[in-house]
Amino acid sequence: MSTGGNGGATATNKQVILRDYVSGFPKESDFEITTTTVELRLPEGSNSVVVKNLYLSCDPYMRSRMGKPSALALAQAFTPGKPILGFGVSRVIESGHPDYKQGDLLWGIVGWEEYSVVTPEMHFKIHDTHVPLSYYTGLLGMPGMTAYAGFYEVCSPKKGETVYVSAASGAVGQLVGQFAKMMGCYVVGSAGSKEKVDLLKNKFGFDDAFNYKEEQDLSAALKRCFPKGIDIYFENVGGKMLDAVLSNMNMHGRIAVCGMISQYNLEDQEGVHNLTSIIYKRIRIQGFVVFDFFDKYSKFLEFVIPCIKEEKIAYVEDVAEGLEKGPEALVGLFYGKNVGKQVVVVARE
Amino acid sequence: MSTGGNGGATATNKQVILRDYVSGFPKESDFEITTTTVELRLPEGSNSVVVKNLYLSCDPYMRSRMGKPSALALAQAFTPGKPILGFGVSRVIESGHPDYKQGDLLWGIVGWEEYSVVTPEMHFKIHDTHVPLSYYTGLLGMPGMTAYAGFYEVCSPKKGETVYVSAASGAVGQLVGQFAKMMGCYVVGSAGSKEKVDLLKNKFGFDDAFNYKEEQDLSAALKRCFPKGIDIYFENVGGKMLDAVLSNMNMHGRIAVCGMISQYNLEDQEGVHNLTSIIYKRIRIQGFVVFDFFDKYSKFLEFVIPCIKEEKIAYVEDVAEGLEKGPEALVGLFYGKNVGKQVVVVARE
Repeated sequence: MSTGGNGGATATNKQVILRDYVSGFPKESDFEITTTTVELRLPEGSNSVVVKNLYLSCDPYMRSRMGKPSALALAQAFTPGKPILGFGVSRVIESGHPDYKQGDLLWGIVGWEEYSVVTPEMHFKIHDTHVPLSYYTGLLGMPGMTAYAGFYEVCSPKKGETVYVSAASGAVGQLVGQFAKMMGCYVVGSAGSKEKVDLLKNKFGFDDAFNYKEEQDLSAALKRCFPKGIDIYFENVGGKMLDAVLSNMNMHGRIAVCGMISQYNLEDQEGVHNLTSIIYKRIRIQGFVVFDFFDKYSKFLEFVIPCIKEEKIAYVEDVAEGLEKGPEALVGLFYGKNVGKQVVVVARE
Repeated sequence: MSTGGNGGATATNKQVILRDYVSGFPKESDFEITTTTVELRLPEGSNSVVVKNLYLSCDPYMRSRMGKPSALALAQAFTPGKPILGFGVSRVIESGHPDYKQGDLLWGIVGWEEYSVVTPEMHFKIHDTHVPLSYYTGLLGMPGMTAYAGFYEVCSPKKGETVYVSAASGAVGQLVGQFAKMMGCYVVGSAGSKEKVDLLKNKFGFDDAFNYKEEQDLSAALKRCFPKGIDIYFENVGGKMLDAVLSNMNMHGRIAVCGMISQYNLEDQEGVHNLTSIIYKRIRIQGFVVFDFFDKYSKFLEFVIPCIKEEKIAYVEDVAEGLEKGPEALVGLFYGKNVGKQVVVVARE
């Protein structure tokens, strides 16, 4: 950090830049690491906040921001030549905003860089630091809220029901399965490696789990795990998996559509064929986006923090050290390389 | 009618028989007209009811009963060599059931034949005969209840919303459109001929309508009719139409899935590709079956009979005269030959 000519201080600022809009699967070469400088003092009258980024979150929805701008995207497209954006945990270095002061910890959208200047509009202050700070990128952040809202608000779960979770070892899936177990449901998850399947069964307490890559017939795999059918499907995958699920759903089943990661990198999305089941089985398919439930965040923390402290919830992170590892970690999501919630450590302070 | 040896009376009974399970599009030759005799007197102690059938209803869901028995079918498969079954309006000839007496009119499931012996489990007595009796196969029967339950209970409609109805001139569609107009919605329907499109605009009061067979691009047709997007889709069609709708739905849109007639005769159902829209747009897709709403039938009649008498609701039937015309009328449904609700007149008494 050096003192600038105008009484400010500047720091070097490493950044992960999007080279150009991505089509198909993202590659590490779609990103570039550059170093620039950042002014750490705010101009008079600014209500922005300068933060030092500590942890960054790799989330599947980010794929939708890498493509060309589209009305369909969940959030606006990243800008080529600029740092990409994502959820992160940060410490306030300087604040012009009345709600934040130097030293505050917060989580919310920041640039993939060492320091960001943000206008905190959808940032949450971190009060409880008796849990690892990185958890606020996952279990205690957006993915945790996604699992909580999706399961309790969208799935309408009842004790004794059968619940299937795809991409079940990911940030959201591992929590949905554990919430469902806590409610007295029978829970099965799928994932893409033996290691992940072991995690589901042995660490997260799923009743059963399978490696979808080793199944010749996904519908048969589901029939084996759910001889009496599926009441609730927490959808993270889409495509062929959704077809297999539809043919195994029970009457009045519910499908909460959280994501469809198998489709995000395809130019033409796979067709889903078994949709007439929706009629006969009176199925409800409900898409949801966590942003609509952020008003329940403090209620969620009241519920989940005691669960962590009493070790009722297990949580597994896949940690990449250093911002330079960010592109590899982010791209790896779409190949299922992460085991548990994928985090990038920018600084441990 | 002749008096039998056991003190009974027999009558000749013309029937529409299913030759064999149907695959692909049904053909007239899948059915056979035969004549048998029926005993019009009930044995001592029977609690069945002998009815004379007056009107029979041709409904798309019947296709699911023509195939081989399947766990997926809405109702059990028809039996080859036996008369097919469907909703009909009938008069009681003789009753062993305490709730029914000779002369009563009722509607419910009967055989496609002149006389049926039924155990009235899901039959409704007809009280109001100041409307055409045939209406109890449509507007005042199962399709009317379907439109009512589907629109008011499943679509969660609000005044000022935009509503799209496919197969809109059919028994259900024509009513959904009129219910939506009564609620102050903007309503567009699609159908498969100029004649039907004219009906939608000029008879049923839809704000706009299009002939889907003349559109090169269904999504573009919807964009033209709904420049601000679709809030509610009442789904009768499935397949390509659903894809086009998904790309034109608004945030928090609802799709009530009543039927998917375009898919019923296909060996392999068409793939639907735009399902990721469900997430970004927080769409709810809800399948429903009218049987789940039959407890609301008297409430429905209280609502709809005054509408008919005050001419707030228009209703168009396509009437086939004579049981012999039954197979042609039923098969015609799947080619869109009917204009309005397809009815078969067995007897006008």
